[in-house]
Amino acid sequence: MNDTVRLIQAHHSDRSFKADPIPDEILDDIIESAHLAPTSKNGQQVSIVVVRDAERRKRISEIAGGQAWVATAPVFLAVVADLYKTYVGLEKAGVTQQVQHSVEGLVVSATDVGIALGTLMIAARSYGLGIVPIGGIRRNPEAMVELLELPQYTFPIAGIAMGYVDVPATQKPRLPIESYRHEERYHTENVRPAIDAYDISLVKYFKEIARTDGTSWSQNTAASYGEVYFPKVKPVAAKQGFTCED
Amino acid sequence: MNDTVRLIQAHHSDRSFKADPIPDEILDDIIESAHLAPTSKNGQQVSIVVVRDAERRKRISEIAGGQAWVATAPVFLAVVADLYKTYVGLEKAGVTQQVQHSVEGLVVSATDVGIALGTLMIAARSYGLGIVPIGGIRRNPEAMVELLELPQYTFPIAGIAMGYVDVPATQKPRLPIESYRHEERYHTENVRPAIDAYDISLVKYFKEIARTDGTSWSQNTAASYGEVYFPKVKPVAAKQGFTCED
Repeated sequence: MNDTVRLIQAHHSDRSFKADPIPDEILDDIIESAHLAPTSKNGQQVSIVVVRDAERRKRISEIAGGQAWVATAPVFLAVVADLYKTYVGLEKAGVTQQVQHSVEGLVVSATDVGIALGTLMIAARSYGLGIVPIGGIRRNPEAMVELLELPQYTFPIAGIAMGYVDVPATQKPRLPIESYRHEERYHTENVRPAIDAYDISLVKYFKEIARTDGTSWSQNTAASYGEVYFPKVKPVAAKQGFTCED
Repeated sequence: MNDTVRLIQAHHSDRSFKADPIPDEILDDIIESAHLAPTSKNGQQVSIVVVRDAERRKRISEIAGGQAWVATAPVFLAVVADLYKTYVGLEKAGVTQQVQHSVEGLVVSATDVGIALGTLMIAARSYGLGIVPIGGIRRNPEAMVELLELPQYTFPIAGIAMGYVDVPATQKPRLPIESYRHEERYHTENVRPAIDAYDISLVKYFKEIARTDGTSWSQNTAASYGEVYFPKVKPVAAKQGFTCED
């Protein structure tokens, strides 16, 4: 195994940060890493808003449902699905952009935001920083649109809080690999046994780290996915132009 | 700059591959890297189908619109938005999954697929492999569902062809950083000047690499985004359960 893969495989989310700032040249390198990541059709449908201002990070920590680490980590990167730049480019070419009306427009933007998020997290960790991805900004995407002054055809998908770690976290186990990696075709028969094994190993892990609110994966996931846990995503995405019509 | 960031920032897509196979232990490390990447709410809504069979890669190269490199690279990884595993987990917990009906369900899955894609590409390149992400499988997602025997509540978002490089490619320039990185709030005023500069630099790059079909970014993007270029995404996603209703 090489050093980069060893770093990647040590991934865990940290939520305990020191106030120490991140040097500018390190932040530059991290963001440039994502800037050079691939995008579908070279559409470059991603933007990053760097939030360092303490008041604004506090506001984002509230929007995200009371995630204190967004306020304590010195930097929050909001990663935005961005079909505004393509819109301006098409306008220049004399063509009216249509893709934002389509499910494809949302899929391509969210996927490319994900590639940027993955790249940012690895680059940040390579500099010894801790990171935690924050999807909770989708609890109230309209508040993020207002705070970040996001234009039409953009949507705040997720963010990353990053900084130097105070108390390091541990790595949570995953569902067994047999339910993640499938050879040649999807093997549905592997899923239920994997969940049964994981329900046990995850509870064991929560006990080991003395976390008292941890339940099995099935129960924990049922608490979210039995309902539309972020109901504002559809109307705010539509208001921003991502209407999922076509 | 450290070695991992140097590797990340050297990203480019390769499309010329040798037939040499990828050793099993390297492929294991690459996939395990993505397996350990974070997912929203620990939902683990991602799966990977490893396609090595030559006939099946040839079929995928056709589905993707005649992308020959999918047939020549020894491995294709299909990265799948997967709310089937959570569905089985919820069923075990006695709860009916609802999230797949929502725009959020599609956004969270596509974003986490993107994180996996970004992680896979960096891990593969750290072993000296070349990679090219393939969103073109969304031209005909139903054919991918059939070929990979994907169950309900899954959708084939994108894939990666990987292998040892024959003739290396170069790195395409990006839109200027001012239109990608925004301080504290989104700066719309930076967008049009960035596009104007990029339209010139991209054409210059295409001339340098002697590519004759290259136009400016504005014109090139207009050729796709003025229409819904993958119209089957919405109906096939809906058929798979991702209905974008809520």
